[in-house]
Amino acid sequence: MTLPKGKENCLTDVQGVKVGHVTLYEKMNNENTVCTGVTAILPHGGNLFKDKVHASSAVINGFGKTVGLIQLDELGFLESPIMLTNTFSVGSVLQGTLQYMLAGNEEIGDSTGTINIVVGECNDGYLNSIRKQAVKPDHAIQAIKNATTEPVKEGAIGAGKGMVCFGYKGGIGTSSRVVTDSGETYTVGVLVLSNYGSRDEALFADFPKKQLDTPDGSIMMIVATDAPLYDRQLKRLAKRCAAGLGRTGSHIAHGSGDIAIAFSTAQTHSHDTDSPTELMTFVRDSHQLMNRLFQAVTEATEEAVIRSLKMAETTEGRNGRMVEKAPL
Amino acid sequence: MTLPKGKENCLTDVQGVKVGHVTLYEKMNNENTVCTGVTAILPHGGNLFKDKVHASSAVINGFGKTVGLIQLDELGFLESPIMLTNTFSVGSVLQGTLQYMLAGNEEIGDSTGTINIVVGECNDGYLNSIRKQAVKPDHAIQAIKNATTEPVKEGAIGAGKGMVCFGYKGGIGTSSRVVTDSGETYTVGVLVLSNYGSRDEALFADFPKKQLDTPDGSIMMIVATDAPLYDRQLKRLAKRCAAGLGRTGSHIAHGSGDIAIAFSTAQTHSHDTDSPTELMTFVRDSHQLMNRLFQAVTEATEEAVIRSLKMAETTEGRNGRMVEKAPL
Amino acid sequence: MTLPKGKENCLTDVQGVKVGHVTLYEKMNNENTVCTGVTAILPHGGNLFKDKVHASSAVINGFGKTVGLIQLDELGFLESPIMLTNTFSVGSVLQGTLQYMLAGNEEIGDSTGTINIVVGECNDGYLNSIRKQAVKPDHAIQAIKNATTEPVKEGAIGAGKGMVCFGYKGGIGTSSRVVTDSGETYTVGVLVLSNYGSRDEALFADFPKKQLDTPDGSIMMIVATDAPLYDRQLKRLAKRCAAGLGRTGSHIAHGSGDIAIAFSTAQTHSHDTDSPTELMTFVRDSHQLMNRLFQAVTEATEEAVIRSLKMAETTEGRNGRMVEKAPL
Amino acid sequence: MTLPKGKENCLTDVQGVKVGHVTLYEKMNNENTVCTGVTAILPHGGNLFKDKVHASSAVINGFGKTVGLIQLDELGFLESPIMLTNTFSVGSVLQGTLQYMLAGNEEIGDSTGTINIVVGECNDGYLNSIRKQAVKPDHAIQAIKNATTEPVKEGAIGAGKGMVCFGYKGGIGTSSRVVTDSGETYTVGVLVLSNYGSRDEALFADFPKKQLDTPDGSIMMIVATDAPLYDRQLKRLAKRCAAGLGRTGSHIAHGSGDIAIAFSTAQTHSHDTDSPTELMTFVRDSHQLMNRLFQAVTEATEEAVIRSLKMAETTEGRNGRMVEKAPL
Repeated sequence: MTLPKGKENCLTDVQGVKVGHVTLYEKMNNENTVCTGVTAILPHGGNLFKDKVHASSAVINGFGKTVGLIQLDELGFLESPIMLTNTFSVGSVLQGTLQYMLAGNEEIGDSTGTINIVVGECNDGYLNSIRKQAVKPDHAIQAIKNATTEPVKEGAIGAGKGMVCFGYKGGIGTSSRVVTDSGETYTVGVLVLSNYGSRDEALFADFPKKQLDTPDGSIMMIVATDAPLYDRQLKRLAKRCAAGLGRTGSHIAHGSGDIAIAFSTAQTHSHDTDSPTELMTFVRDSHQLMNRLFQAVTEATEEAVIRSLKMAETTEGRNGRMVEKAPL
Repeated sequence: MTLPKGKENCLTDVQGVKVGHVTLYEKMNNENTVCTGVTAILPHGGNLFKDKVHASSAVINGFGKTVGLIQLDELGFLESPIMLTNTFSVGSVLQGTLQYMLAGNEEIGDSTGTINIVVGECNDGYLNSIRKQAVKPDHAIQAIKNATTEPVKEGAIGAGKGMVCFGYKGGIGTSSRVVTDSGETYTVGVLVLSNYGSRDEALFADFPKKQLDTPDGSIMMIVATDAPLYDRQLKRLAKRCAAGLGRTGSHIAHGSGDIAIAFSTAQTHSHDTDSPTELMTFVRDSHQLMNRLFQAVTEATEEAVIRSLKMAETTEGRNGRMVEKAPL
Repeated sequence: MTLPKGKENCLTDVQGVKVGHVTLYEKMNNENTVCTGVTAILPHGGNLFKDKVHASSAVINGFGKTVGLIQLDELGFLESPIMLTNTFSVGSVLQGTLQYMLAGNEEIGDSTGTINIVVGECNDGYLNSIRKQAVKPDHAIQAIKNATTEPVKEGAIGAGKGMVCFGYKGGIGTSSRVVTDSGETYTVGVLVLSNYGSRDEALFADFPKKQLDTPDGSIMMIVATDAPLYDRQLKRLAKRCAAGLGRTGSHIAHGSGDIAIAFSTAQTHSHDTDSPTELMTFVRDSHQLMNRLFQAVTEATEEAVIRSLKMAETTEGRNGRMVEKAPL
Repeated sequence: MTLPKGKENCLTDVQGVKVGHVTLYEKMNNENTVCTGVTAILPHGGNLFKDKVHASSAVINGFGKTVGLIQLDELGFLESPIMLTNTFSVGSVLQGTLQYMLAGNEEIGDSTGTINIVVGECNDGYLNSIRKQAVKPDHAIQAIKNATTEPVKEGAIGAGKGMVCFGYKGGIGTSSRVVTDSGETYTVGVLVLSNYGSRDEALFADFPKKQLDTPDGSIMMIVATDAPLYDRQLKRLAKRCAAGLGRTGSHIAHGSGDIAIAFSTAQTHSHDTDSPTELMTFVRDSHQLMNRLFQAVTEATEEAVIRSLKMAETTEGRNGRMVEKAPL
């Protein structure tokens, strides 16, 4: 029995979550095309450093350059936006996001230690002239500022601008599920940056065969929920993205950085309090509710991948390469 | 493009690998039925302690009581059979397997330290009177002695005797794939002990709805290959079982111990040598061959689960419970 | 600045924690001597399955056969005693402990799934005729029944009967520290089963040189606290045992299973409740209190090792081997 | 018995390893001082992308922002220099190092996928005006170009310029040990970027008490060896840094990113070969040699920390803060 979808079937169905894109596209010359971007995911609209949320990650395949997971896993808290971009722009987006967070928090690096920024990536080098490193720190700042709680724009947009998935145009896709238990309703949203797979692997469609010479590709999967879960439990949710991936036809390729990050908006934890202890509500792992949350992640991951294809448009990139919209 | 199957489509297609079962079935009274067993997987027919094989594991969901993975992961070698049984018989099977290995190696625990035994389990308590702990150490020894290189017997046999999968009779299933590259042929075999899922979750069949009140269940997945891989790489293979699981319809339930163990028979490493160093051949991760091995694991895992249903028979267990053969 | 010790400087300074030993010693003939035992650590005196405590583990070096850590790490709860014994008696102690828990909980394996038992071990094969497997399931049950909240007996007792540490008689050692913050007082206790090191490695004493031909050995380290911590935080505590080990002179040898398990008695979580969510108090990681708890683990681990030597007695074992009490 | 030191007692005793520094120091005004830098460690003098070395890491405490460990752990190879800098310059150094590697490898991001850059960091915000982000990409490139096989310059230099350790001036320290077995001689070198601890914690000296209001701090530990080890084994070496740390007096503080990275120069693995398999020599874990390598890491880590203090000079930083040279 599948679960009902959220109101807009997207990540921002989880109340308060904001998503923003910056898309870069410019044909520079016959060989080079800038075809890339940045996507920012904000757990809430407040000060993310001061009001942290529980979070964790799962590295399903580690051929990836995601930044910030070491501290996320040690402390179980997210204190920055989650930024997505291309592989060679991680440094730039890290800098821009840091600048944004420093500007909003004068005490960081002065009286209160440092901040942990999270940046994920996929390699859009088939369409994008990735060596040109067109993404600048300001693009990251702009993506954060663009973030809204409105339904997420999908397809060849933001960090998804240059991505290729199952031999067709991929990029940003999102989906959500609603779980009801004991009179309470919880939402699970998944947003993916899809960039993996070949046509003959797809299990959700019977695509005409044609092999692009793309490298293995990757996928970033962001899971948001308003169910009260702490880091260990959020890692369990993040791991279920692998089941969703498997359903699409992926065998989790060698060169694919398949990385999932999950956070809960149910409670924020204040940076500023001096209290030695804190109180937290959490779902009991053994309650049926937990399995429904796992199911929600699995289903929404699969659908988010499919939507990243459905919502994308045929795109021309470097060396005159053309990646078509999937016949879905 | 799917991969060709091995000669007998089973784990023992990997040359030298042996599998043996001991099945226990006895109706004790109206309430209690012994409906369980032991399955032994041997990487080769020689002395496993003296000639170790590379191995690793992946804990996809850790609601499980598998024994021996700590040392397997630290050292990257398997030096015992891999034993499968029910949850409450792990201690018994551990003892029996230890006795068997001690009998064949007089120096263990005397002049040469200890041995690491690997035992995996699923909970067959729906059909089996598991509290009776009917499995004795001798049953483990017998399962090892029964092991042959012949095609593996599947279904309600050995450790699979009492298992339930997707609401039907599950148990032992196996499948294999053949990968050819640069004139070399490698085989990947997967054997599962299946014990998870409800009817409405299955993606490979449209089962009539009916909910059994089974607990979440689990699955043990054993991957064997003759491709030369070392422990880090075998962990990568083991992780791909999650993609196969996802394809069957699993969302990797909370109470499911989903654990994969992978080993390579390509090279053995001698316990007795005094040499400070050793030589090893391994597949390059970045070579296309690795992706085909990943694909083989994914496909064979999915098929092994389906076969564990196909090959099982309707079985009556404790409290007069009857679990039907799946209409496949 | 070092921290003050607990009232009795032992694990049971953490209120409610109980420790029990069974010691086996018998000279069988000129060659064989049974010189081993079992030690049971109970987080509280109630029903451990029904009232679970937060727990986690750290595998500092994984040349060990500890049972139960997979589920401990997945779920973050301990639902059984922590049992310590010799390497070849893990199966036996697992069985006995399971029997004990089944006897006290009729629904386990019938209406409510399974139970996860935790058993740690070191190799006492230098003094003990470990191949004889003298420990029986009943010895485990007896160790549990012997458990009291009284000051812990140390040295060549229980699982420590046959252990050798830094070339002298080792075994059970324990120590505790008290941390005060904001008017609250918390206790951290550490109990070790010590079985590693050679004389020339000790940093805490200048031992006369003499090399025993013992294998690498191991150490089990159990950390208990009444500070409210959840599993991720308890893993952080468990990891600090490595710093304590380093201080004693260990370089964490290849063949040494150096494994730490930490639990908090501050809150129990009921198995029987149907509530989908639960409330929990936890120490804020960034509060100074956390560093003092880390310091407490480091100091108490070091002292527990030293005490395991101080409190042990010269012991004769198999093959007429004599291991002396350390000149401390 | 301690091990003999290498010829120059430093990381570059491991043949071929190169280290380079860029140091930034400028008093901007009464409040702000740039007091920071970059240190580059190169496993060899060739093309690091084309000739990769086995490597792995250990996150001893994950309050850190090190970049590149996910892929290092998945694939077991290092294909870039290891860069060290301050916490807020990770993005900048990542960019600079990427530019350097792209310039030397035209096919990266064009015909051959991406590259994984490794950057570690400590927070030098007590002395350095870290919010100013004075480190630019070119400084990273310059540090790489400065790298030589000569004895390593230590103390308040490179990334170590602004670091504080045990309440005194810390920074770069290094040490090495030589292990001989069966006629072969192997070298283990450790280089640390030290930035943790308070005066009263030091076990290697009896410092006069005085508390600086520094945050918890961190330590990066780089282990190099010419012993043939693969990734799993190098992770074992990296973990032994924790024992060395414990000996100095650290309890591995909450806010301390204590991260170790180990690599072996014994064999390089070519990016360009098309061969499906490869041959490798490795030390047998169970051979005595492995324990000596562990001991070497433990001893050299402890000494490298002490040397980072010994070799540093009293340094004035932001807000007129003065950190003294330790009385060693």
